[in-house]
Amino acid sequence: AFRKDDRATLDRKELFKNTLRKAAYAWKRINELRLNEQEAYKLRSFVDQAAFTDLHWGMFVPAIQGQGTDEQQQKWLPLAYRMQIIGCYAQTELGHGSNVQGLETTATFDPKTDEFVIHSPTLTSSKWWPGGLGKISTHAVAYARLIIGGEDHGVHGFIVQLRSLDDHLPLPGITIGDIGMKFGNAAYNTMDNGVLRFDHVRIPRNQMLMRVSQVTREGKYVRSNVPRQLVYGTMVNVRQKIVADASVALSRAVCIATRYSAVRRQFGSHNGGLETQVIDYKTQQARLFPLLASAYAFRFVGGWLKWLYMDVTERLQANDFSTLPEAHACTAGLKSLTTTATADGIEECRKLCGGHGYLCSSGLPELFAVYVPACTYEGDNIVLLLQVARHLVKTVSQLDSGNKPVGTTAYMARVEQLMQYHSNVEKAEDWLKPNVVLEAFEARAARMSVACAQNLSKFANPEQ
Amino acid sequence: AFRKDDRATLDRKELFKNTLRKAAYAWKRINELRLNEQEAYKLRSFVDQAAFTDLHWGMFVPAIQGQGTDEQQQKWLPLAYRMQIIGCYAQTELGHGSNVQGLETTATFDPKTDEFVIHSPTLTSSKWWPGGLGKISTHAVAYARLIIGGEDHGVHGFIVQLRSLDDHLPLPGITIGDIGMKFGNAAYNTMDNGVLRFDHVRIPRNQMLMRVSQVTREGKYVRSNVPRQLVYGTMVNVRQKIVADASVALSRAVCIATRYSAVRRQFGSHNGGLETQVIDYKTQQARLFPLLASAYAFRFVGGWLKWLYMDVTERLQANDFSTLPEAHACTAGLKSLTTTATADGIEECRKLCGGHGYLCSSGLPELFAVYVPACTYEGDNIVLLLQVARHLVKTVSQLDSGNKPVGTTAYMARVEQLMQYHSNVEKAEDWLKPNVVLEAFEARAARMSVACAQNLSKFANPEQ
Repeated sequence: AFRKDDRATLDRKELFKNTLRKAAYAWKRINELRLNEQEAYKLRSFVDQAAFTDLHWGMFVPAIQGQGTDEQQQKWLPLAYRMQIIGCYAQTELGHGSNVQGLETTATFDPKTDEFVIHSPTLTSSKWWPGGLGKISTHAVAYARLIIGGEDHGVHGFIVQLRSLDDHLPLPGITIGDIGMKFGNAAYNTMDNGVLRFDHVRIPRNQMLMRVSQVTREGKYVRSNVPRQLVYGTMVNVRQKIVADASVALSRAVCIATRYSAVRRQFGSHNGGLETQVIDYKTQQARLFPLLASAYAFRFVGGWLKWLYMDVTERLQANDFSTLPEAHACTAGLKSLTTTATADGIEECRKLCGGHGYLCSSGLPELFAVYVPACTYEGDNIVLLLQVARHLVKTVSQLDSGNKPVGTTAYMARVEQLMQYHSNVEKAEDWLKPNVVLEAFEARAARMSVACAQNLSKFANPEQ
Repeated sequence: AFRKDDRATLDRKELFKNTLRKAAYAWKRINELRLNEQEAYKLRSFVDQAAFTDLHWGMFVPAIQGQGTDEQQQKWLPLAYRMQIIGCYAQTELGHGSNVQGLETTATFDPKTDEFVIHSPTLTSSKWWPGGLGKISTHAVAYARLIIGGEDHGVHGFIVQLRSLDDHLPLPGITIGDIGMKFGNAAYNTMDNGVLRFDHVRIPRNQMLMRVSQVTREGKYVRSNVPRQLVYGTMVNVRQKIVADASVALSRAVCIATRYSAVRRQFGSHNGGLETQVIDYKTQQARLFPLLASAYAFRFVGGWLKWLYMDVTERLQANDFSTLPEAHACTAGLKSLTTTATADGIEECRKLCGGHGYLCSSGLPELFAVYVPACTYEGDNIVLLLQVARHLVKTVSQLDSGNKPVGTTAYMARVEQLMQYHSNVEKAEDWLKPNVVLEAFEARAARMSVACAQNLSKFANPEQ
């Protein structure tokens, strides 16, 4: 049932039916083996094929867990756990990706009927990309601007039923489609990413996710005392998983390229004997070995991020928000760094396998196609790097005011010393001392941050 | 007939039938419109789909034109021109890509029957990759080691019939297959790249391409007085075309990304108005505009390479080989530089389009998948760059002996002056003077070449 060697040759319809079959069989095995959610997650990841179940478990359920009230969780989670409803996560719109605050879909409170009216006022407000939406999902957590009495309270999440549980047809006012083929032969084409438009769709008031903010029967907007920063904890969690996945993807590519390099021979035979293994060429080593090292480094830093997530979560629950900005910068920066390096690294591994890397049978083209969207989703890498830069510059500018930097930026407290730092490395072996390497990085990072902050202070508009 | 919007959704079989249909229709139009070969080439390129006809016209016919005797050309070319036979180019083997001299297929002369016996002695000697071979070709120009009386005379080209002209079945001793799916949805999957094995296949002696070397009826190996360097002229021609194609591919990607950047808006609205066009962000400009500039630069250098090819050809015909090494280095270096920059640039353009770039409908995923093999074929880019480096180092080392460098390396004659060069740039506008830029590049190139030559001279084995 989990066979995958035929994936590249299937047409879109067969590919998708194949995914349905695998998802159903995985669900059957999960129940038969009485797996817990962590074990089930592992099994689904071993199926190694993007499916609607990823988003149901990875975003729909967590959104309700994180943003739903106790009553909402009691009502919706059991249905979701038994897959009696299947959910997707409808956030991005055709015209709005990175800028969540710019979403256009509206949820207008109607006090007469105690309902929200969900509506897509423009073409650009069409929901675009939600995985599982195109053909499968019965429900969505949809994000929309909350409008009460003409006042805009910003973007909130709503549980909206999309399709009938009887005949699976879209409900009145719901228009759904599949957004079409994506990069690669199989890759994300096993997933039914969709487009969704709402034409004045009515849902009961209690389907707004109300853990953080509520709308009362009278149409009053109330913030709960649950700290809004909790949302960032979820973001740290999602990005920590992306970093862990980067290590897995890069390891697979490096493994393939290393084995190939050990088997493949080209040029340079001695006395008419066998040609040289390509792994023995310095040019091959200089490209392959740093990727091998990165795969390990990403694994270790992924483990550290997991610890960071737990640490931040504990602090948040104790109303300690002090480490949040630094944790946010670390996950944003590492998400960006590891996914960029992994996407480029998979393609480099493909090229390291010469012509054979271009064949789907090498595994590398599909690995690349299924991996690269990680550079864009959950925060575009360039946008995230700018956020890291902003955090570093802010850290520098606050040093004078006595704000003590924490965690990975703690070294900034020694900025004056670091600006004067001269390496006393004399021979190659000196670089084998971790503290020498660490201090060099700290000095370089401090100098670059200070220089950047000084340059930026010359401009009034940060985009200049 | 040339419709292509459905390509990404077709399965392999439909995709291939679709290609056959287009190739047949293009052939019909070429005949109806009485197009000459140059016009026909343009029409086929507008069909914009890799097909067996590319290799028939681009490699099979030119191989016979370049390496066949007058008699061979008179016999085979009319058949090929009328497509009564369809040819492919069977050079690379499963175990041998870059190292053509390491090919294992043998062509053993049998003086009893006046025939060559073409044979695949090992698994690694299987022909691998020839486009058009898998399902279509009736003939191949196959490269094999010429063996006469036990003596190995190196790799030569042979015209071998593969399939019956009656029922299209493989002839006795011929085993053919398709090597399977390649990177991308459509991309090179419209082409039937194949695998081929010979089991003691006999061909008449006059099917060895004998313009440069001959085998007589008595089994004597004779070199003609046609200069062997003519072969390099063909290589210059092929690589010049690849550079021209790089400009076309990068232009398409940049065009898509630029239009997207002008339409897409994200963040930064003023007073609740429209968000900012992403083309107005410095971060977008810093990534997009250098690619736009490169697309133009590659176009101009492609035109220059075309001139270089004509110049070299004229000189070769007058037995002047003096500019050949430099021309070879230029085409190798520019092939490597432009294809690497274009492959990376298409992927960068894809990322510049955010999530939308991941959709096949953006055009970018397929453009990338169909383009990237250019980094590997006709000389792997890393191998070619090493050849350029070798040429430069050799040029440096020959300066003392009074060898005058020519063409693009002529500046090396001023090496002593360039090693002392100090830029007198004082203000930004100084960089607008072309001679300032040119001199800076020359100084840098000279210094790096000299430094590299000095470093290399410390090692006996150049791989160290």
